[in-house]
Amino acid sequence: MNRYAVIMAGGIGERFWPRSRQNLPKQFLPLLGDRSLLQQSCERIQNLVPPENILVVTGREHLSLAREQLPHLPETNFLAEPQGRNTAPCIGLAAVYLRHRDPDGVMLVFPADHLVQGREDFTGCMEKALKLASSTDSLIAIGIIPTRPETGYGYIEREEEAFPGKPPAYPVRRFVEKPDYHNAVQYLHSGRYLWNSGIFAWKVGLILEKMQKHLPDLYRGLVKIASGIGTVEEQNILESIFPSLPGISVDYGVMEKETNLLVVQGDFGWDDLGSWSALAECFPKDEAQTVGVGQHVGIDTTGCLVYGENSLIATLGISNLVIVQEKDVVMVCSKERAQEVKKLVQKIKERGMTQYL
Amino acid sequence: MNRYAVIMAGGIGERFWPRSRQNLPKQFLPLLGDRSLLQQSCERIQNLVPPENILVVTGREHLSLAREQLPHLPETNFLAEPQGRNTAPCIGLAAVYLRHRDPDGVMLVFPADHLVQGREDFTGCMEKALKLASSTDSLIAIGIIPTRPETGYGYIEREEEAFPGKPPAYPVRRFVEKPDYHNAVQYLHSGRYLWNSGIFAWKVGLILEKMQKHLPDLYRGLVKIASGIGTVEEQNILESIFPSLPGISVDYGVMEKETNLLVVQGDFGWDDLGSWSALAECFPKDEAQTVGVGQHVGIDTTGCLVYGENSLIATLGISNLVIVQEKDVVMVCSKERAQEVKKLVQKIKERGMTQYL
Repeated sequence: MNRYAVIMAGGIGERFWPRSRQNLPKQFLPLLGDRSLLQQSCERIQNLVPPENILVVTGREHLSLAREQLPHLPETNFLAEPQGRNTAPCIGLAAVYLRHRDPDGVMLVFPADHLVQGREDFTGCMEKALKLASSTDSLIAIGIIPTRPETGYGYIEREEEAFPGKPPAYPVRRFVEKPDYHNAVQYLHSGRYLWNSGIFAWKVGLILEKMQKHLPDLYRGLVKIASGIGTVEEQNILESIFPSLPGISVDYGVMEKETNLLVVQGDFGWDDLGSWSALAECFPKDEAQTVGVGQHVGIDTTGCLVYGENSLIATLGISNLVIVQEKDVVMVCSKERAQEVKKLVQKIKERGMTQYL
Repeated sequence: MNRYAVIMAGGIGERFWPRSRQNLPKQFLPLLGDRSLLQQSCERIQNLVPPENILVVTGREHLSLAREQLPHLPETNFLAEPQGRNTAPCIGLAAVYLRHRDPDGVMLVFPADHLVQGREDFTGCMEKALKLASSTDSLIAIGIIPTRPETGYGYIEREEEAFPGKPPAYPVRRFVEKPDYHNAVQYLHSGRYLWNSGIFAWKVGLILEKMQKHLPDLYRGLVKIASGIGTVEEQNILESIFPSLPGISVDYGVMEKETNLLVVQGDFGWDDLGSWSALAECFPKDEAQTVGVGQHVGIDTTGCLVYGENSLIATLGISNLVIVQEKDVVMVCSKERAQEVKKLVQKIKERGMTQYL
C-alpha cells in the first residue's frame, strides 16, 4: 500500500497581517527560521513519503509560488483550488486525484502553516498513524497531548481503553469545539482530551466513501471533477464545479459525524500558529519577556513582540503589545487581542485601501 | 529706534525623533500645517519687523536649509553657529552683529520651534514688549498666563503691582525652575506666576551690557567675534572663538541674576512643543481621544497619537501610546513617557546605529 502526503497550503493568513499579504500568505513566509512554513512542512515528512508522492493543494493565485518554493516536487503534484472552500473540498480534491493515480493508496493530510518543534517525535507519530490507517478501516486523527488549558483549539475526547493492538491508539468518543477556560482546565487534567491538530491519515478510498456518506453534495461534485482528470476538459470542469462545493471543514463535515475513528496521541511541540501572540511564544525572549525580530531598540519594554522587516523599531515604556512593521504598514495591537487582527484587515478592505492587504 | 527680530533656530529636536533627524531637525519640519515651524515663526512677526531686519541663528550644518525655507530674507541675515552653545551665546552673537549694524536697535528674541495659536494676540503682545524695551532700560520677558498646572515649564513670578505707565507690565520678582505638581497648582491659582516663554525683548546695547556684567567670559569672546565682523578674518575668528563660549542659557546666565526686569503678560495659545504628547494636544481628536496624522486605521484605540509619514498605521486594542513612523524607523512609546524619547536616541547612538538618527 503506497503512502501519500497532502499538504494543505490554501488560506490567506489574515491573522498574520501585515506580514502575511494576499499575494504572499503566511504559509509561504519564513516566519520561523530561514525556510517558509510550507517548506518546513515538506521537509518534515521527507523520511515518511517520497517527493513524487507529496501533493500540495493551494489557491490558484499561489500555484507558481508553491512550485517555486518546492522545486523538488513534480509540477503535476500541485493542485490549484479555483477558490478557497475550506478543508473538506480541499481534501476531497486531493483524494480524487490520488484515487485516479492509485486507488489503494493511504494518505496523510496536514496544514502547511503549523509549527512542529520535535521533528523526530513527529515522524514517529505519523509513522504510527499511517500504519494504523493502512491496517484498519478507521479514519485516523492526530491528537496532541495538551500542555496548557488552551481555549483556542478544538479538542478530541478519547475513550479510556486503548484500541487493541499495535501501534497504540484510542477510539474517539467525540470531537469538541473550543472550550471556555473552565472546561479547558478540566480537559487538561482529565488525560482523555487531546488538541485536534487537523492532521489526519486514512485510505484514499475510505475518506471518499465517508464523504459520500456524510457529505453527498460534496461527493457528487468530486465525482464530476474526477471525470475530467486526464482529459482536455480537466481544467474547465474543475473551474466550474469546485466553487460550488459546500465550504465545510472535514472536522465538522466528516469527523464529527463518523463513529469509526481512532486517535493517535502525539507530543511533538505542536502549535497551530494562530496569531502573532502564538508566534511570540516560539522565539527566545529577553529578560523583560520581550521578543525582538529584526532591528529593535527598547527601553522598559515588557512582554512584547517586536517584529520588523526593514525598519528600526524603537520602543519605550510599553508592555504586552505586538508591533509588526512590513513594507508600507505598521501594525500595533495588544497581545491579548492578537486573534482579532483580521478585524483590521476587514476594516481596511471596507475602506478600499486594498494596496495594504 | 529700529526694531529687529532674532529667531533662534538651533538645536536638534531629539524629543521629536524619529520625525526630527540630525539633518532635518524639528524647527525645519511642518509638524503642524504645511509650513515648517521656522517658517511659521517668521510669518508670525511679519507685521512687526521688516524682512531685512529679521535675523536667523542656526547650526552651521543647517544654514542652507534655513535660507531655502526663508528665501525672502537677505542671505547675510543668517548667522551660523559653528557649534550649539545654548541661548546666551546665540543671543550674544546676534547682538554683536546687530550692534555692528545699528547700535541703537531694539531686538525681539524667540525660539523657532514653538506653537502660537493666536497670531493677533501674539502680535499685540510683542508690540507692547518692543515699546517697553525701547522706552525703558529694562530687559523684557514675555510670561504666558498659565491655563493648567504644567510641570514641564519654568515660571516667572511677578510683583503684585504693575509697573507704572503704558503699556502694562510687571516687575519680575524671580525666575523659577520647573515646579512639582503641588507647586504648579499653587502657581496656577496665585495669578502671579507666568510660564517663561523664552521670548524676550531688549535694546541691543542693554543685553550686551548685562552680559558683560553677569557673563564676563562670554562677553570677552563676543568682543573678539565682533572685532572680525566685516573683515577677511570674520569666519576664522567665529570658528575659533564660538565653540569656547560658555554653554549657558540666557535665563540662567542673565535673567536670574538681573534685578531690573519687566514681564509682559501674554495669552496667545502658546506651547513650547516639548514632546510628542504636547504635539498631540494641537490636533483635532476623534471620539476616542486619538489623533491620527497620515494613514491610520484603528479599532479600540484610545488617547493615542498615531503619526505616520508614508506607511499605513493600523492599531487595535491600545491606549495612551505615541506611534510615529518616519522613513525607516517606527517609534512606539507610552504617552506619559514621551519626554524620554531622547533616551532612545541616546541608546541608538551608543549602539552605533547612526543611520537612524
